Amino acid sequence: MSAREPVLVGGRWQASLDTAGEFRALDPTRAVEVGAAFPISGAQDARAALASACAAAEELAACAPARIAAFLDAYAAAIEADGETLVELAHLETALPARPRLAEVELPRASGQLRQAARAARERSWTQPIIDTAAGLRSHLAPLRKPVLIFGPNNFPFAFNAVAGSDFASAIAARNPVIAKVHPSHPGTSQRLAQLAHRALLDAGLPAQSLQVLYHLDPALGLELAGDARLGALAFTGSRSAGLALKAAADAAGVPAYLELSSVNPVFLLEGALRERGEALAQEFFASCTLGVGQFCTNPGVVVVPRGEAGDAFVAAAAARFDAAPAGTMFSQGVLDHLRAGVAAWRAAGAQPLGGDVAADGEGYRVRPALLGVDAAAFVADRRLQSEAFGPASLAVRVDGIDEALQVAAALEGNLTGTIYGGDSAADDDDWRRLAGALRPRVGRLIDGRMPTGVAVSAAMNHGGPYPSTGHPGFTAVGMPSAIRRFAALHCYDHVRQDALPEELRDRNPGGLSRWIDGGWTLDDIATKTGGTTA
Amino acid sequence: MSAREPVLVGGRWQASLDTAGEFRALDPTRAVEVGAAFPISGAQDARAALASACAAAEELAACAPARIAAFLDAYAAAIEADGETLVELAHLETALPARPRLAEVELPRASGQLRQAARAARERSWTQPIIDTAAGLRSHLAPLRKPVLIFGPNNFPFAFNAVAGSDFASAIAARNPVIAKVHPSHPGTSQRLAQLAHRALLDAGLPAQSLQVLYHLDPALGLELAGDARLGALAFTGSRSAGLALKAAADAAGVPAYLELSSVNPVFLLEGALRERGEALAQEFFASCTLGVGQFCTNPGVVVVPRGEAGDAFVAAAAARFDAAPAGTMFSQGVLDHLRAGVAAWRAAGAQPLGGDVAADGEGYRVRPALLGVDAAAFVADRRLQSEAFGPASLAVRVDGIDEALQVAAALEGNLTGTIYGGDSAADDDDWRRLAGALRPRVGRLIDGRMPTGVAVSAAMNHGGPYPSTGHPGFTAVGMPSAIRRFAALHCYDHVRQDALPEELRDRNPGGLSRWIDGGWTLDDIATKTGGTTA
Repeated sequence: MSAREPVLVGGRWQASLDTAGEFRALDPTRAVEVGAAFPISGAQDARAALASACAAAEELAACAPARIAAFLDAYAAAIEADGETLVELAHLETALPARPRLAEVELPRASGQLRQAARAARERSWTQPIIDTAAGLRSHLAPLRKPVLIFGPNNFPFAFNAVAGSDFASAIAARNPVIAKVHPSHPGTSQRLAQLAHRALLDAGLPAQSLQVLYHLDPALGLELAGDARLGALAFTGSRSAGLALKAAADAAGVPAYLELSSVNPVFLLEGALRERGEALAQEFFASCTLGVGQFCTNPGVVVVPRGEAGDAFVAAAAARFDAAPAGTMFSQGVLDHLRAGVAAWRAAGAQPLGGDVAADGEGYRVRPALLGVDAAAFVADRRLQSEAFGPASLAVRVDGIDEALQVAAALEGNLTGTIYGGDSAADDDDWRRLAGALRPRVGRLIDGRMPTGVAVSAAMNHGGPYPSTGHPGFTAVGMPSAIRRFAALHCYDHVRQDALPEELRDRNPGGLSRWIDGGWTLDDIATKTGGTTA
Repeated sequence: MSAREPVLVGGRWQASLDTAGEFRALDPTRAVEVGAAFPISGAQDARAALASACAAAEELAACAPARIAAFLDAYAAAIEADGETLVELAHLETALPARPRLAEVELPRASGQLRQAARAARERSWTQPIIDTAAGLRSHLAPLRKPVLIFGPNNFPFAFNAVAGSDFASAIAARNPVIAKVHPSHPGTSQRLAQLAHRALLDAGLPAQSLQVLYHLDPALGLELAGDARLGALAFTGSRSAGLALKAAADAAGVPAYLELSSVNPVFLLEGALRERGEALAQEFFASCTLGVGQFCTNPGVVVVPRGEAGDAFVAAAAARFDAAPAGTMFSQGVLDHLRAGVAAWRAAGAQPLGGDVAADGEGYRVRPALLGVDAAAFVADRRLQSEAFGPASLAVRVDGIDEALQVAAALEGNLTGTIYGGDSAADDDDWRRLAGALRPRVGRLIDGRMPTGVAVSAAMNHGGPYPSTGHPGFTAVGMPSAIRRFAALHCYDHVRQDALPEELRDRNPGGLSRWIDGGWTLDDIATKTGGTTA
C-alpha cells in the first residue's frame, strides 16, 4: 500500500483512498513492467476528485485571467526545464523516439500550446462579448463553473496528455477545474507532468483543487463520473467503443461531450498527380502511414487510387516500402491486438494484402506496417472496411475513374480529415473540385496535396469533424482560442448594473478587447452608463 | 382521404402518403373541432420528408447568401401582408388575443426575426472566418449540408413556429433544409405560414425541397426521425419529457440536439425592494405570471420572498390579484391537465394554496391562475417543487434572510432565466451580488429588476441555459446571428487553392466581412496569394 504512488485529489498528493488494485507502466520494447506501482482508483478516489473539483469551480472562475495565464506560462516553462527527464520517462513508457519526436517535436508542441492558451486566456477573445446597448443586453462565453473531466489518449504523452494537452489547456484557460484521467500506458510521464502542474498552480495562487489526477479507473467508474450532472463537460480522445460508452453516460446526464473517436482520414490521389509524381507520393504516403508507428489520429488509413498504369505503379511503389519497412514498437499489447483485429476485419470484408504484414515481429509490441487493397464496390458496400485499424496499416481502395471515387467519398463516415492530391491538368482540377464537394460534409479539415498527419496548433485549425469522428461538428479540439470555446457557457446579462458585470462586458474596455457592439466589432468603450447608445 | 389537407413533402403539396389518421384543430374556448382535417403522417411521409430534405442539402448550401436573404425578407413581407388572415387563424386555434398579442406583438416579432436572419445571412458574421496565413489554414462555420428537424411548440404560433420561428430562420440562414414538425394545436396557422414560405422559396429560386412540413406524427415516428444519422441537427421546444426522449434518440445517432425543455425562471425579491415598492412588484409579478395565460417559456414559476412584514405584504397583494383574476383559456386539454398535475405535485410536496385555483372554470380550456406557497426547507429538499407547471401557476418560496435565499438558489436546476430585484440599500446591493453569484451558473440570462417574460430578439440575448433548461449551455435559441451558429459545422481548409475556397475565406474580401486573420479582427484583404503573410 505505502509503496504505491499517490493520486492528486483534494488539492494534494495523497494515498489512493480505496485503491482497486495497482499497475505499472510497461516498457513496450520488452513488454516488461518498469517504474513505480500506481493505484487503480476505486469509487472513493473518483468521487472525492469530483467533489473536490466542484468545490474549486467558483473560485477558479473568479480568478483574474492574468493569473490563469501566468500559471499556463509557468507550467510551459517548467515542462521545458524538465524536458530531459520528461523525454526519458515518456520514451521508456511509450517507446516513441526520444529524438526527434519527443524532445524536438512533441514537447515543444505541448509547451507552445500551453503558451498559446496563456495568450488566449489573457486576451480573452474566446469570450466573444456581444453587447446590444438599445436592448440593455450583454452576453459572453464564460467559465462553466463546473469541472471538466478529461480522458487522455495513449498516443501523445505530452501534447494530448490529460494533464498537459489541448483539452487541459483549453479547460483551464476557460477557468474550469480539471479532473484528469491520464492514460495508464504512461503513468510516470503523467505523474511528472502533474507534479509540475500542481506546483505551478500553487505558485500562481490558483486553487489547489483546480486539478485532480487519477491514473487508472475501472471502466464502470469512468462511466459513473462521465454521467454525473455536476460535471461541466467531458473531453475524451481514444477508441470509438470507449468514447461512445462515455458519451452515452454524459448525454444521459446532460453533460456536453467532446470526443475524438476515430478517423480513417481518406487520401484521394488523382490520375494527373500520380503521373506527375507517383513515386514521390508513394514515399510521402508511406512516411505518413508509419509516422509514430501509425499511432496518429490523423493517420491516412485509406488511400483511394485510380486503376490503371499510374495507380498500379503507385501501389507497387508503396507496397514495396511496406514490405521493406522495419518493425516499429507500438504502445501496448491492447493497441497491437486492436490493430490486428482491424486488419482481420478488413480481410474478412475482402481486402487483400499488398505489402508488409502486421504479424508479430520480435520482442515487445513490435509490428511491421501493412498495406492492403480492396476494390471500390467492396468498400462502398461494407462498413467494416472503414473501421479504424489504429496503427501502421492502410487500405488502398482502387477506383475506376472519378465516378467511382465519388461513390467512395459519398460512402465515407465522418472523418477528421480528407485529402485530395491533384496534378496540373484541367481534368485533375475538375475532379479535385467534384471530390472536394463530396468530401466537404464528411470531414473537418479538407487538405489540398499534403498528408493529414501534421496538425498545426492554430486558431484556424479544425481538429474535429462530423460524427462519428467526434461528438459534435462545431468544435475543434486543437488550436487556441478556438478549442477553449468547448468549455464555456453562454451567459447573458439583462439590464445588469455596471459593477456587477464581468469585466469584458462593462462600458469601459481598458484591455482593448474586441467586442461585438450593436452590430460590429469594436475596441471602443461604451459612452453612456448602461442601456444607452454606443460612443 | 381526399378531404384531408396535403403535407409539404418532396418539394410540393401532396396528399399524405400513408396517413395514420386525421385530426382537426380545436377551438380552445369551446373545446370543439374547427377547420380542416389534417393528416397524422405515417412512416412513409416521415421517411419521404427526410430523404427529400437530404436531397436538397447540397444545392441549398451552395446557394448565394443574398438569395437566402431575399427569401427570408420576402417571407417576412408575405407574413405581414397576410397578417389579418394569420392572426384570425391563430386566434381561433390558440385563443391567444388577436390584439395586442398576435397582431401587434407576435406577428411583427416573427417577421422582424426573419428579417434579422436575412441580414445575418447577408452579412455572414455567423460564419466566423479564421485565417492563419503562416500555417496555410482557413476555417469557418459552414452549412451542415444536412437537414435540421424542428419540432415547434404550442405557445408561439408565429414566432416559434417550426415553419416561421427562430429555429426555422436560423436553420435556413445557415443554408440547411428544414423538416418542420409543426405543433398540432395550430395546424391551420402553420399550413398558412408554410404556404407562404413555400411560395417565397420558389420565388427566390431556392430548392423546393428545402422545406418539408408535417402536421402530426406518432411519437415513435418522431423518435425514428430524430435518431436518423442523416439529420444535421434537431431543434425542439416543448415539454421536458418529450424533449428528453427526442434528445436520447438524437444523441444515440450523434445528431446535435438543441432543446428548450423547461424552466421555472426564479425571481428573487430582496427586502429593500419589497419595502420600497412591494405593491408595484406584486402587480408586476402577477402580470408576468398570467401573461398569455402563463404559457411562456420564461414565465416566473418561482418567486422567492423573505419572511417578515414586507414579504407578507407582497404575498398578500399578489394572492389577492390571483384570487380576483378572471379565467383565461389555455391551448389544450393536455396543457391544462399538465398544469393541474404540476400543481398537484407541488401540493403533494407540501405547497399550500395562497390565492386563485387552477380548477376548471367554465367552457373550453379555461382556467384561473393560482399562487401557492412553500417554505425554503421544503423547496430545497424536494425536486417536485421545481417541476414546471406550464401555465399561470407560481410558487412563492418563503426564506429567512439571505442565507436561506442562497440555499434556494443553490438548489435550483438549470433555468433559462434568473431575476433579482433589489432596492437602493447597501444591504440589498450586497445581497444582490451574493445571489447573482449563486444564480449565475444556474441560468442562461441573469436579469436585474425586471420580469423574465420579455425575450428581445437580439444578438446579445441568451434564450438558453444549463441543462435541463436546454440541451447545451453554449447556445441561444433566439437572437441573430447568434442562434444561427447552432446549425453550422466547423470547416477547415488546409492549403486549399483560392478558387476552391468558400468566398469568405478567400484572400480578397469584397463584402467587407470581419475576419479573424493572424490574431485579430480585420476587414482587410490578404495581400499574397495563399499561405503568405497578411497585407
